[in-house]
Amino acid sequence: MNGHQLTGLAAPVNLADLRAVARRRLDPAHDDYFAGGAGDERTVRDNEAAFDYYRVLPRVLRGVGTPDLRTTLLGDTVSMPVLVSPTAFHRLAHPDGEAGCARATAAADTIMVVSMAATTPVEAIAAAAATATPPPSSSANGTSRPASAANGTSRPASAANGTGRPPKLWFQLYPQPDLAFTESVIRRAESAGCTALVVTVDSPVFGRRERDLRHGFLDLPDGLCCENMRDPETDAIRSITMDARLDWRRIEWLRGVTRLPVVLKGILHPADAALAVEHGVDAVLVSNHGGRQLDGVPASLDALPAVVDAVAGRLPVLLDGGVRRGTDVLTALALGAVAVGVGRPVIWGLAAGGEAGVRQVLELLRADLEQAMALAGAARPAELTPDLIRPAVRR
Amino acid sequence: MNGHQLTGLAAPVNLADLRAVARRRLDPAHDDYFAGGAGDERTVRDNEAAFDYYRVLPRVLRGVGTPDLRTTLLGDTVSMPVLVSPTAFHRLAHPDGEAGCARATAAADTIMVVSMAATTPVEAIAAAAATATPPPSSSANGTSRPASAANGTSRPASAANGTGRPPKLWFQLYPQPDLAFTESVIRRAESAGCTALVVTVDSPVFGRRERDLRHGFLDLPDGLCCENMRDPETDAIRSITMDARLDWRRIEWLRGVTRLPVVLKGILHPADAALAVEHGVDAVLVSNHGGRQLDGVPASLDALPAVVDAVAGRLPVLLDGGVRRGTDVLTALALGAVAVGVGRPVIWGLAAGGEAGVRQVLELLRADLEQAMALAGAARPAELTPDLIRPAVRR
Amino acid sequence: MNGHQLTGLAAPVNLADLRAVARRRLDPAHDDYFAGGAGDERTVRDNEAAFDYYRVLPRVLRGVGTPDLRTTLLGDTVSMPVLVSPTAFHRLAHPDGEAGCARATAAADTIMVVSMAATTPVEAIAAAAATATPPPSSSANGTSRPASAANGTSRPASAANGTGRPPKLWFQLYPQPDLAFTESVIRRAESAGCTALVVTVDSPVFGRRERDLRHGFLDLPDGLCCENMRDPETDAIRSITMDARLDWRRIEWLRGVTRLPVVLKGILHPADAALAVEHGVDAVLVSNHGGRQLDGVPASLDALPAVVDAVAGRLPVLLDGGVRRGTDVLTALALGAVAVGVGRPVIWGLAAGGEAGVRQVLELLRADLEQAMALAGAARPAELTPDLIRPAVRR
Amino acid sequence: MNGHQLTGLAAPVNLADLRAVARRRLDPAHDDYFAGGAGDERTVRDNEAAFDYYRVLPRVLRGVGTPDLRTTLLGDTVSMPVLVSPTAFHRLAHPDGEAGCARATAAADTIMVVSMAATTPVEAIAAAAATATPPPSSSANGTSRPASAANGTSRPASAANGTGRPPKLWFQLYPQPDLAFTESVIRRAESAGCTALVVTVDSPVFGRRERDLRHGFLDLPDGLCCENMRDPETDAIRSITMDARLDWRRIEWLRGVTRLPVVLKGILHPADAALAVEHGVDAVLVSNHGGRQLDGVPASLDALPAVVDAVAGRLPVLLDGGVRRGTDVLTALALGAVAVGVGRPVIWGLAAGGEAGVRQVLELLRADLEQAMALAGAARPAELTPDLIRPAVRR
Repeated sequence: MNGHQLTGLAAPVNLADLRAVARRRLDPAHDDYFAGGAGDERTVRDNEAAFDYYRVLPRVLRGVGTPDLRTTLLGDTVSMPVLVSPTAFHRLAHPDGEAGCARATAAADTIMVVSMAATTPVEAIAAAAATATPPPSSSANGTSRPASAANGTSRPASAANGTGRPPKLWFQLYPQPDLAFTESVIRRAESAGCTALVVTVDSPVFGRRERDLRHGFLDLPDGLCCENMRDPETDAIRSITMDARLDWRRIEWLRGVTRLPVVLKGILHPADAALAVEHGVDAVLVSNHGGRQLDGVPASLDALPAVVDAVAGRLPVLLDGGVRRGTDVLTALALGAVAVGVGRPVIWGLAAGGEAGVRQVLELLRADLEQAMALAGAARPAELTPDLIRPAVRR
Repeated sequence: MNGHQLTGLAAPVNLADLRAVARRRLDPAHDDYFAGGAGDERTVRDNEAAFDYYRVLPRVLRGVGTPDLRTTLLGDTVSMPVLVSPTAFHRLAHPDGEAGCARATAAADTIMVVSMAATTPVEAIAAAAATATPPPSSSANGTSRPASAANGTSRPASAANGTGRPPKLWFQLYPQPDLAFTESVIRRAESAGCTALVVTVDSPVFGRRERDLRHGFLDLPDGLCCENMRDPETDAIRSITMDARLDWRRIEWLRGVTRLPVVLKGILHPADAALAVEHGVDAVLVSNHGGRQLDGVPASLDALPAVVDAVAGRLPVLLDGGVRRGTDVLTALALGAVAVGVGRPVIWGLAAGGEAGVRQVLELLRADLEQAMALAGAARPAELTPDLIRPAVRR
Repeated sequence: MNGHQLTGLAAPVNLADLRAVARRRLDPAHDDYFAGGAGDERTVRDNEAAFDYYRVLPRVLRGVGTPDLRTTLLGDTVSMPVLVSPTAFHRLAHPDGEAGCARATAAADTIMVVSMAATTPVEAIAAAAATATPPPSSSANGTSRPASAANGTSRPASAANGTGRPPKLWFQLYPQPDLAFTESVIRRAESAGCTALVVTVDSPVFGRRERDLRHGFLDLPDGLCCENMRDPETDAIRSITMDARLDWRRIEWLRGVTRLPVVLKGILHPADAALAVEHGVDAVLVSNHGGRQLDGVPASLDALPAVVDAVAGRLPVLLDGGVRRGTDVLTALALGAVAVGVGRPVIWGLAAGGEAGVRQVLELLRADLEQAMALAGAARPAELTPDLIRPAVRR
Repeated sequence: MNGHQLTGLAAPVNLADLRAVARRRLDPAHDDYFAGGAGDERTVRDNEAAFDYYRVLPRVLRGVGTPDLRTTLLGDTVSMPVLVSPTAFHRLAHPDGEAGCARATAAADTIMVVSMAATTPVEAIAAAAATATPPPSSSANGTSRPASAANGTSRPASAANGTGRPPKLWFQLYPQPDLAFTESVIRRAESAGCTALVVTVDSPVFGRRERDLRHGFLDLPDGLCCENMRDPETDAIRSITMDARLDWRRIEWLRGVTRLPVVLKGILHPADAALAVEHGVDAVLVSNHGGRQLDGVPASLDALPAVVDAVAGRLPVLLDGGVRRGTDVLTALALGAVAVGVGRPVIWGLAAGGEAGVRQVLELLRADLEQAMALAGAARPAELTPDLIRPAVRR
């Protein structure tokens, strides 16, 4: 399969088109695995619906030209404030798997957060990222990408690399009760070049996803496994443990065993955001795990303002959950996020077209954001101020 | 019929599954009797919808392990803050009837509120409860029940009893204008071991349930009757009178004829909650009778906060109406209830599988609540504080 | 046709049942004439929907027994706070027409507001009302009507009259530019025994009802005409003029030519309610003409509170528009109305069963209100205080 | 084709009827071009829905007779406060094109804003407007138009002109980066008799309209072109450039090259409205380009109040977007607009019946507004005060 072409696929106009293609291509149980959430999936639906609660109030006559989307996140300068959130089991969606996703993400010059539940070893993901090629001069979508998007990195480029840039990978971690094993995983991530640890804190137990229970989808098919859970001594694959005893002391322990910046993923309560500041973590990612853990928690966007208030600028706030449009990115940034992650859209891209599909997802989002910023009169992400949005009038 | 097996029933994933099975198994007129409410059934629908008005704002990194759900209610320690609210005519739903329900409730180590309109005598219900067996080690649902749930009772265990625990039964009473008869019913409840009286105060007249009027469903079929209405002198079954003259003096009279704690069921107005405190009742149960009395009254959950404010901690507040999920229980407790009752779900369980169906209902709720608390970072019901919930953003 | 029997009609359970029957029996153009409203019919829909914005917060343990619904309106004591609002063209709905409506209304011991656009002369309507028989001892609906409902009138009974009561008729007036003719109509109403004038003030021009435009329904069929518009000199039927120059001076003129109390029908703006007090009118009827004049005006219920505030008890406030349930009546009274009118439901009753159908409408409403008050703990309309209702929680 | 008759078309009752006819007559790709908007078309839908957020609270007994709708806008007195907003490509909708639209608009004695993207030269449009005939004495709709509507202009009538009135044309401008060309276009507009420049400021880039992307509708069919973009030197048709560098300095430049009043079209943010005052523009038109530029911006009506507040009476505020009913016009004026524009309805009229269809659109709106004002008790647009409307109660 040629990861660079979406054979038989009419040019998608938006992410919903890719979602539709993905649905047709995926095994229904796998589609439900990726699409589903906990309980009645109220939070899943809310994540997308939340953005419609805001309206953009554009500024005019600012003569901004083409917006510059570059953003710096924990030392990594990315071409746009959109990164790839961690999602499990990419090879279940497409043979290109995490490697294809990494190539597409690197080509888009942004960050991929490698999942602890990846079906490809982090080392192979990093290697794939390093071979990424820049996007074709005429993108699939007809949108022109600013040349500036390909420069501006703040770290020296690594050796042989199609883009002349080092892979920008962060690593998502479920801290395991076995501390030695946890540390070994962190060492692998560090060695592979990951530049931040994204610690998932919303999973003391596994979310109850009823679609999976109905399908009996409980495990990966033969040939696929969580490669980052390989025991360094036995070479066997360990199961990921959701640790109900995980607490702030473990976060402190983590900070002691690695020099990588630590991002806490899954913060919704402002009191926890304040604690994150007190414990010296480097960033928080407002997330509800795509609605897959506790149904009935707020949409990420609805939880964002209180978290932003609580941290009061003392650390960067990121968000994932429901981002599908350029105006969604714009809204989250106007509310105080420095960047957003996309999860399911990356899966749709993978399922629809492998690496090329992920590229399309990222370039559609870039084009959409660039246009939204131009029409809103914002030349840079920093100009996305709160006065540009307001609550929608509810009918 | 084997009350311990749900033959021909795929493992239900949630209560809605059991509702669907029940609908297929019940006579349509009986299904409508259980499902229906007064008038346009606005309140019926509102009871369930009200919970979706709140969102849970979970705390993370609290290391709570497995939550301990035990709760003490008027001296009875139960394994979880979920009890079986009184519902009429269990034998209309399944031959296991109230006896099956009592066995299932005792096995779950919680309280069953015996209905005055039970189709089984309270004495037989108590006897059934005393023979209950603990749940099979591997529950139907794969959820593990904490061993701690089987202990912690605050009263001495009664004699021969499969669980080593006395039955935990409360008795629901429509006070009858014939005071002598009313007293005789109370004596039967006391003798059977009931430990509280739940006095229904929302029924000065009978609710007008239009589904029943359309079906012409006005009376129990042959062979079934309200066994607790048997006249001690004539042995005939009396009709239950809805007493339009029932007032606070009768509550005082009740407190004079029994030493059982008195719970007022059907309080919605905070002024009545304050009067309940003044009249020395032991608890109030915020309820709208499942929407079966006056259509257009608030959802129980919507009425709860003002009642909690009005009693100001001077007596415990319970709630029933619309509880279907662990997060529903969590929400009611965070808003100030000490426990919740479930009514229709018990009927669904009965209709779907008799005693075993009721067991499933209670274990599904327990597992769901346990998980919701774990994911919200609450180790005990007392940790379900108001800051864990917030109103949903309305779209 | 026997006006006292609803042949072939299963006992209706609520007004919606009668609406459904009426729809089947009416010519579609006539059904649309009665059902339709102006423009997009937003106000038509809003009238009914508005009641669902409130919830009833019932009081318990008040021992109120059977509520006494009697109410006094401008000197007329009626058996319940529900009157028959003026609607045109009753004989288009059923041969019983206004005479049947009058008999049914008199039998229910309440007020009928005779329409200026009646297809029966006011004298014949009054004669019919005087021959009304009391309702059969077992009403069609199985609800028992309190014996007290048949007494309590404050005026001496007129001569030969089946009920021993004088007809309780008010007369609705579109003041015509021809003052002499207007005065002649008022004299006819006075002579026929009407006890109040209900002056429609929301119709400076005729509402644009698009259903009628599509049907080409512009005039009454042969044999029917507006009998109260008969010219006393030529005996010809005049057309009703909507007078765009109608103003407060005409109201003062009206008060000079009749001693009947004057009710202004169609007040929505609180400033106009205040002017009504200043101009010495006797009551205001908050109404939007059933949504038939200007689409987009508020539901009557939504306009009520500001009007009640503006008049500050200086004159009685009535309401019509959307009343279909006992809780609707209860809600309007709790918000400050002294009584409500029903319009379209009377047409449904007429179309479904002539006089007997109107009886059913009124007895269904009476039973529903009586039950709502009993369940809310209110013994009399005066006990319907604002604390019994509250805004619904919006989802 | 006879522009004065709608052959085969039942008399439309409202604009939705014309929309339905237009949909049947247009090529689906062209219908989508006119109907569609940017992104998910949230703003397209919101524009219409916004009006339903308000209710009209009418005044009664004001004796206003027939309202006088005349309004003066930047020196032009028009027969009603409804003008024709600029829309592109009229000849795509109907062969009558912009000329037919101009004749219909002149006959209705209001203003047409000629689009820079017109498929007819501005000179020909002006010539057509000058030959307009007054509406037939009995309008297609049976509504009588006040005789007064045909007088009251404040400028001397031009020479040979069917109506005895000069054409009332404004010219819509996308300022082009080529200033000389821009100036040449302005000169053409001035020479043709246009009396104001409407400068579109919401289009630094072209909106992404997904319906057009799916159809591949990217350019006009053969034979049609943007006649106002004809290069004066080469006679070739230039493409319209959306200038991402357009800023306030260019507005100042414009005011230097023409003495025509300048209206800024596409203001939504109150800060930009305040800047418009500071820069001395003559009016602002609150608009979101029919939802065709940035999806997710507020409905025009929702943005209006803050803009009205910001300009504080220092310049007139106009609005377009979603106006379909007389009450919509009334609502916008009560909120502070001096007039409204209609865009898509004009296209519906054109597509349905050419010039005659546009006449119908304008006369339906006039009749609807006249009736709404009569029923609201307003004799003149200036009497449409804020107290006549209020937010709808949300359900």
